[in-house]
Amino acid sequence: MLKKLYYGVAYYDEYMPYDRLDEDIRMMKEAGINLVRIAESTWSTLEPRPGVFDYSHIDRVMDAMYKAGIDVIIGTPTYAIPSWLEKMHPEVLAETKQGRRPYGARQIMDITSPAYLFYGERVIRKLMEHVANHPAVIGYQIDNETKYYGTAGNNVQRMFVRYLRDKFGTTDALNAEFGFDYWSNRVDAWEDVPDVRGTINGSFAAEFEKFQRSLVTDFLAWQAAIVREYARPDQFVTHNLDFDFSRGHSSGVQPDVDHDEVAKCLDIAGCDIYHPTQDHLTGLEIAQFGDQIRSLKNAPYLVLETEAQGFSMWTPYPGQLRLQAVSHLASGAEMVEYWHWHSIHNAQETYWKGLLSHDFKPSAVYQEAKIVGREFAKLSPELTGLHKENKAAILISNIALTSLKYFNIGMGMSFSRPGMLDYNGVVRWMYQSLYDMNIGVDFIYADHLDENADLSKYSMICVPALYAASEELLGKLLDYEKNGGTLVATFKTAFANENIKVYHDEAPHTLAKAFGVSYSQFTIPEKVSVSGIGGGAPADAWMELLIPGEGTEVLGRYEHPYWKAYAAVTRAHCGEGTGYYVGCHTTDAAMRAVMEEALRSAGIDAPYADAPVKVRVSLNEKGERILFFLNYSMEEKTVQVPASVNLITDEQYQNGQEVALGDWGYLIVKA
Amino acid sequence: MLKKLYYGVAYYDEYMPYDRLDEDIRMMKEAGINLVRIAESTWSTLEPRPGVFDYSHIDRVMDAMYKAGIDVIIGTPTYAIPSWLEKMHPEVLAETKQGRRPYGARQIMDITSPAYLFYGERVIRKLMEHVANHPAVIGYQIDNETKYYGTAGNNVQRMFVRYLRDKFGTTDALNAEFGFDYWSNRVDAWEDVPDVRGTINGSFAAEFEKFQRSLVTDFLAWQAAIVREYARPDQFVTHNLDFDFSRGHSSGVQPDVDHDEVAKCLDIAGCDIYHPTQDHLTGLEIAQFGDQIRSLKNAPYLVLETEAQGFSMWTPYPGQLRLQAVSHLASGAEMVEYWHWHSIHNAQETYWKGLLSHDFKPSAVYQEAKIVGREFAKLSPELTGLHKENKAAILISNIALTSLKYFNIGMGMSFSRPGMLDYNGVVRWMYQSLYDMNIGVDFIYADHLDENADLSKYSMICVPALYAASEELLGKLLDYEKNGGTLVATFKTAFANENIKVYHDEAPHTLAKAFGVSYSQFTIPEKVSVSGIGGGAPADAWMELLIPGEGTEVLGRYEHPYWKAYAAVTRAHCGEGTGYYVGCHTTDAAMRAVMEEALRSAGIDAPYADAPVKVRVSLNEKGERILFFLNYSMEEKTVQVPASVNLITDEQYQNGQEVALGDWGYLIVKA
Amino acid sequence: MLKKLYYGVAYYDEYMPYDRLDEDIRMMKEAGINLVRIAESTWSTLEPRPGVFDYSHIDRVMDAMYKAGIDVIIGTPTYAIPSWLEKMHPEVLAETKQGRRPYGARQIMDITSPAYLFYGERVIRKLMEHVANHPAVIGYQIDNETKYYGTAGNNVQRMFVRYLRDKFGTTDALNAEFGFDYWSNRVDAWEDVPDVRGTINGSFAAEFEKFQRSLVTDFLAWQAAIVREYARPDQFVTHNLDFDFSRGHSSGVQPDVDHDEVAKCLDIAGCDIYHPTQDHLTGLEIAQFGDQIRSLKNAPYLVLETEAQGFSMWTPYPGQLRLQAVSHLASGAEMVEYWHWHSIHNAQETYWKGLLSHDFKPSAVYQEAKIVGREFAKLSPELTGLHKENKAAILISNIALTSLKYFNIGMGMSFSRPGMLDYNGVVRWMYQSLYDMNIGVDFIYADHLDENADLSKYSMICVPALYAASEELLGKLLDYEKNGGTLVATFKTAFANENIKVYHDEAPHTLAKAFGVSYSQFTIPEKVSVSGIGGGAPADAWMELLIPGEGTEVLGRYEHPYWKAYAAVTRAHCGEGTGYYVGCHTTDAAMRAVMEEALRSAGIDAPYADAPVKVRVSLNEKGERILFFLNYSMEEKTVQVPASVNLITDEQYQNGQEVALGDWGYLIVKA
Repeated sequence: MLKKLYYGVAYYDEYMPYDRLDEDIRMMKEAGINLVRIAESTWSTLEPRPGVFDYSHIDRVMDAMYKAGIDVIIGTPTYAIPSWLEKMHPEVLAETKQGRRPYGARQIMDITSPAYLFYGERVIRKLMEHVANHPAVIGYQIDNETKYYGTAGNNVQRMFVRYLRDKFGTTDALNAEFGFDYWSNRVDAWEDVPDVRGTINGSFAAEFEKFQRSLVTDFLAWQAAIVREYARPDQFVTHNLDFDFSRGHSSGVQPDVDHDEVAKCLDIAGCDIYHPTQDHLTGLEIAQFGDQIRSLKNAPYLVLETEAQGFSMWTPYPGQLRLQAVSHLASGAEMVEYWHWHSIHNAQETYWKGLLSHDFKPSAVYQEAKIVGREFAKLSPELTGLHKENKAAILISNIALTSLKYFNIGMGMSFSRPGMLDYNGVVRWMYQSLYDMNIGVDFIYADHLDENADLSKYSMICVPALYAASEELLGKLLDYEKNGGTLVATFKTAFANENIKVYHDEAPHTLAKAFGVSYSQFTIPEKVSVSGIGGGAPADAWMELLIPGEGTEVLGRYEHPYWKAYAAVTRAHCGEGTGYYVGCHTTDAAMRAVMEEALRSAGIDAPYADAPVKVRVSLNEKGERILFFLNYSMEEKTVQVPASVNLITDEQYQNGQEVALGDWGYLIVKA
Repeated sequence: MLKKLYYGVAYYDEYMPYDRLDEDIRMMKEAGINLVRIAESTWSTLEPRPGVFDYSHIDRVMDAMYKAGIDVIIGTPTYAIPSWLEKMHPEVLAETKQGRRPYGARQIMDITSPAYLFYGERVIRKLMEHVANHPAVIGYQIDNETKYYGTAGNNVQRMFVRYLRDKFGTTDALNAEFGFDYWSNRVDAWEDVPDVRGTINGSFAAEFEKFQRSLVTDFLAWQAAIVREYARPDQFVTHNLDFDFSRGHSSGVQPDVDHDEVAKCLDIAGCDIYHPTQDHLTGLEIAQFGDQIRSLKNAPYLVLETEAQGFSMWTPYPGQLRLQAVSHLASGAEMVEYWHWHSIHNAQETYWKGLLSHDFKPSAVYQEAKIVGREFAKLSPELTGLHKENKAAILISNIALTSLKYFNIGMGMSFSRPGMLDYNGVVRWMYQSLYDMNIGVDFIYADHLDENADLSKYSMICVPALYAASEELLGKLLDYEKNGGTLVATFKTAFANENIKVYHDEAPHTLAKAFGVSYSQFTIPEKVSVSGIGGGAPADAWMELLIPGEGTEVLGRYEHPYWKAYAAVTRAHCGEGTGYYVGCHTTDAAMRAVMEEALRSAGIDAPYADAPVKVRVSLNEKGERILFFLNYSMEEKTVQVPASVNLITDEQYQNGQEVALGDWGYLIVKA
Repeated sequence: MLKKLYYGVAYYDEYMPYDRLDEDIRMMKEAGINLVRIAESTWSTLEPRPGVFDYSHIDRVMDAMYKAGIDVIIGTPTYAIPSWLEKMHPEVLAETKQGRRPYGARQIMDITSPAYLFYGERVIRKLMEHVANHPAVIGYQIDNETKYYGTAGNNVQRMFVRYLRDKFGTTDALNAEFGFDYWSNRVDAWEDVPDVRGTINGSFAAEFEKFQRSLVTDFLAWQAAIVREYARPDQFVTHNLDFDFSRGHSSGVQPDVDHDEVAKCLDIAGCDIYHPTQDHLTGLEIAQFGDQIRSLKNAPYLVLETEAQGFSMWTPYPGQLRLQAVSHLASGAEMVEYWHWHSIHNAQETYWKGLLSHDFKPSAVYQEAKIVGREFAKLSPELTGLHKENKAAILISNIALTSLKYFNIGMGMSFSRPGMLDYNGVVRWMYQSLYDMNIGVDFIYADHLDENADLSKYSMICVPALYAASEELLGKLLDYEKNGGTLVATFKTAFANENIKVYHDEAPHTLAKAFGVSYSQFTIPEKVSVSGIGGGAPADAWMELLIPGEGTEVLGRYEHPYWKAYAAVTRAHCGEGTGYYVGCHTTDAAMRAVMEEALRSAGIDAPYADAPVKVRVSLNEKGERILFFLNYSMEEKTVQVPASVNLITDEQYQNGQEVALGDWGYLIVKA
């Protein structure tokens, strides 16, 4: 939790075509910018040759910012390596499935390479010695958007075999659990464990990815520990977590990082969120990924990067920059920082534009930022230290995500092939329906769930495609329902164990009780629709031929000459609770219909389900409600507000008063 | 020829998550399963470390099956190698055009590698010593779906150069025949023959593929010889031949294997056939590929693998499993075996489901198998030892298939590019039209046609896109027509010789006489249709600008402002026979119209051409006709049967009696 | 300038399946063929083993041609290497971004490899010694369609670092200009300059491509110098320049060669032009690429290769071969040569057919060639030594083309990705509109523009997407307008300097004055159209949000709820001239509307703008106009001619007389 709302930018004095520092600070002040992040990814200017350090860019920026009253976050520079390091130690480049990566881009190194770690540690220590005591510095970002970059060389695989030995004890246990007898993959000696890069065994491949994710956790914990040796008690350590980007913007759970594990070494969670704008600005990405990051520590978080202008197709319409900024606050952020201040004049991201265009002039977008800056200053006292008390949660799992990649549905097609439905598509499908009804949502990270984790605080837990899950996890979910919870799951849940060994009883294994269904057949729907609650919506991608148990209500059936014998959507009671199971993928409207039922079962109110705009709610320490009304549209909309005060204009509203929001407009009230 | 109809499954005790042998046998008996295939592809459990053999899975299964009266086929395990072999001898992995293959999948080895052959021979001998005298064992399957896996390393290419020297004698002869002068590819020393993997010379590339196919023939003959050293006289040797799979199911002639050559080392021909189901079950694949395999030895054959449930999109509708099983019998199979008994719980083929689902419960499909088992038992005495006396045949050639891959039609597009018409598309186009009219078809394997082969037993021979063919073969076809046969050929026939050197007279070379046409121009049709017999059908993919000779009838012309001067479909007489030539690709309906004419020329009756269902006919040793009426549709159909007896119900039918077939139903009668 | 019109073929005695020389010459004479090109690409027959030369094919062809009165061009054979060279020196194969190229194709070598140059020089000298004094030989083609084949191995990159040192002097200057600080790419020692193949820095990558283009220039200059040591004064040196082929035919500026630089070592410019035919024959490619090549030396040029039949889809309609041949003359060619005489019977280009088909018979196309031959002979006295005096020009730049490849617009998409608009698409867009109005066009090669180049001879200069341009070049364009010229530019012009460093003032930098606009925002249009001059045409691919300056006329605006505030198309005056700026890509019709305005500003008459056929004009030495009327359509068209004489029929026309042209017909008159 910060002391105020921050409105910031990433700032690269290093990339400037001429000295702009004073002018930039003047323009920042004018726009209400009160934070910059520096030093991230600029190793080659900080250490232009091995062991020679040049702090000049950092010094002049820290000093000038301090003088201007702008706070500074220092980023460690380790996510892009200098060419001298690669020339001296070519082995620092990750050896992946596709071979050794070439030098050039960021994020190409083997994060376990001793040479990389040696030079990385030295530059971090030198930087920390230099900056830790500077009064402008409020915190540190360790590395940036860290992932494992496909590292899979010999050194990594030898560590992996040790990990397998620790996990399984004997090769017989390994063979049994992974089904290595198939296609003669059985090993009877640890040294015969084959190179994982050619495997056709999803259990083996997914375990390796899990291991690779643990390398990221270890790497960031190692960096955090070094930084903490120097950091002052009033300074925080954070990291810029990012998301699946397979749809060209922040799109879902990050497959290569266990966010929950990484969060353990951070004081404050941070992330970047990039999203479409113009006609495609719906607020969904800002909401979903904010909810994911807030849930890590159940606390305010930092948006360390988001777009001002960004990709060419994202040039914002007038009003969108403002709406986007407060949308982050509505999810619980206390900092909104643009990547980046100025557009860059060379290389890869020339067209990922900053707050300023290449001409450094006060553009339309900059003019709008000035309004945001003023409004942030006004909102700051009321919008720091907020929290949420959501009754609904979505349970997510990287184990499930990874395992679905290795779930080959036929004709060589994996469920997660580009252009097809994937795990993140199912997560988004469930999230979308709740978001559309303005239901606040937390996320539960299933893979390292604390033994003592209390699920009972939620009235409803949604479980998208939890394909691979341990007995323990499934038992917890069953208990949750028995104890009165409402559980909503989709197809492909509870099909395999955590090692992607398919459970050899009827699906969905332990949860058959929770949902009152079982099945052993499934197919790809062709000319199939869902009647009843589905309202005739077409099924696509996947369908399970559900056999309802006794007492199970069939909410939707398949419309099809032969599959009509089977259920598509069901409701059942188990213990004190209720379970909904959705056996196929279908439309957003059909999912919403299911969720409406589930909310009713869970006793969750949805007062704003039919609001003409998005409504999001936080609470302050006094328990007062802060309501955000967000108009993601080109049309003016009128909303009814409770008795409340407008936090921008200080206007008092009576209960039920109608207030107009302009296109892309917003309203924040305290009720 | 077997003593009874077999209804079987591939069985993998090795893959079981717990001991199920007794329960599985109980369920098999209940379903009428009387055969299992075991030991195929499980080298790593049979020889878990080099030289140490563990027969326990094999022993317990053989013993238990014997006790239960279920016969056993033993598969040699060589198509999937253990990881210890790859760790000791990395060179066993095939070096292909794309480099050395990684360990993991099956079918990745260099089948000429001495290390592979050494260990392969040892494990086969150890296995044979152990099983040959077991009373349960009725035969052997050598390896599985063998191909050459792209093997093209130095050792293979050095053998290939020796092969070229034997074939051509001098480099001058090689240069002339392959046209190596083009783009400076001429060689004047055998050691300068370049690596074939980079070549742009289709003659050279196709010759190498022909050589690679001979490696498969040699490898399987070597295995068969080893197995025969141990096999009892009452045991057979077979192999599981498979087909082109480029459309995601059995799709055509197998490009990588000369089925006719491999068949020489087998006692009984065997194959797998995988095909779409649900709305896409037409019976065509079962018919075509059954006809191909039956024609190898003109004798009953084994379906060693076919799907029970298979790919997710193939989950059968009720009734389809039964219909599929008897469809194989209708082609002349005496064994129908599912791959596989149970669905697997890990790895690549987790979603290629067996007769049992992952839960091992008696599913809907298993229930239907019980009916099949009963019916097979009932049909067995009548449906063993059948044969066919077809008057129509289709001539197929791997040389033509391969050469068409190297026929570049322009803009870098090869005729056989994914998504475009290819050789197998043309074969299927011709087969489909005959299948639709319920005409029984044999296949003639052109590439190694016996000098004494008697084509005159056929009244009609269809020749799809025989792009590359020797003078000898073309001479035989011309003689066939002269002697009264009806020849039906498509575009691209007789364009090049067997070394893909284009004939330098007018196309179609020797066959110009047979068809009474010639041409030297061709193009890709755009807004062109075929009048006359084509009925206005659009031409696509390819068209030849045919110039009819004297006396040639033009059955169809091109409708086009400029191409109308040329013929599209022609009929001519040569000697006693008749030749039809189809100069372009067009619709199925247009091909059927041509075939109707050709059948008339050939004097082939088509009594069931307009039947509402598919009708297939076999003969027993007494010459009695066995008729199969197969309803590949969701609708009930009524058929008229001859005076006959229903082989399932023993009901007697009068001539012309109407019998109803339910959806996906069938009827087998003896007339 | 040649002494007569040449109608020729590439002839390969080496590829013949049997001895055809006498028969071929007989047929050539009958068709009016008076030139053959030989010896190109046949190194392996000329030097079948190292140091052993066999001139027999060359000798017999030269002698026979001489006897028949057919002139000969000798091609050096260096663009396809023999296998013995690769076996002796594998390093002659280019090492590219994708690794070492395999042997097989042509154009696979490292053109800087000493081994290649050593053997290449020897075979050229041997050939030249042998042929230079033969009376049949009129000139030489050095190599063929030379490019750099992606060569990027260690030797090439070490030369490149030297080149960078020469260009920049210090690494600091390099770092600054290329923006190497970004992502830690900064170098502080020349030996740390990283392998360019992995770079994410477009400045660095584009500079390397510029350097690679200079290797082509050097290589051809080296060949020309060797050849000139032997050539007689009456013999010319030329080269077969080719074009971007990314659309499957000659499609635009050749990205890998600086045509203007290569032209300096040639006596006469030569090229190949390949284009669609049938319904897609519009004459555009023949016109555009002829104009490009003619502009190199502002003189007649050679079409050293074009298709007779070519790709299967290009089989010409009756009349098209004739029309194509005279279309080349209409652009200023004095030689039209087919690749090739006969179709080849093996390898890659079997289906790229020559004037003769594989059967060598006098086909329909050959019959039409006989007409062409007669007409060329008739036209020869009038159509040699022509020139053009065009008032409009299009400025093209390989620097701009390359830089646009590295202009990433978002989501990893480059502007020049397959299927998207690219530089050549914009060039063609501008050219098309002028071509449609029958305006003669020259091309200006911007990259090595002579300091003294006189732009003022043009009334209008069109500037397609000149993304990267030096201050000098932009200054020249501004001065051109100030001095009275009309400048027409599209979006993305003048955005970055010649090193692809974006200019850090308002776009379009120096040219903001020329066009009276500026902008700092742009986006990808979605549901945007262009009003006014655009007539409601949809914008696509790219749009700039133009802010018009004082006095600037807005000819077209964006129709869109938010972007309507900005201009799309503008006109402004600067000094004595006028500047048109088109801020987005849109339809051909909209571009034509702009061009109509611009022609008016430039005072360029367009007398044939509405002619029913294409009209092209040249001048002879007396200043008489030669008019070509070319009917690219299936319909008969009637044209009005001036007082003139028909150069084929000698018919006299009165001014305004109507003359009918058949489908694909033409008319050439002298006015």
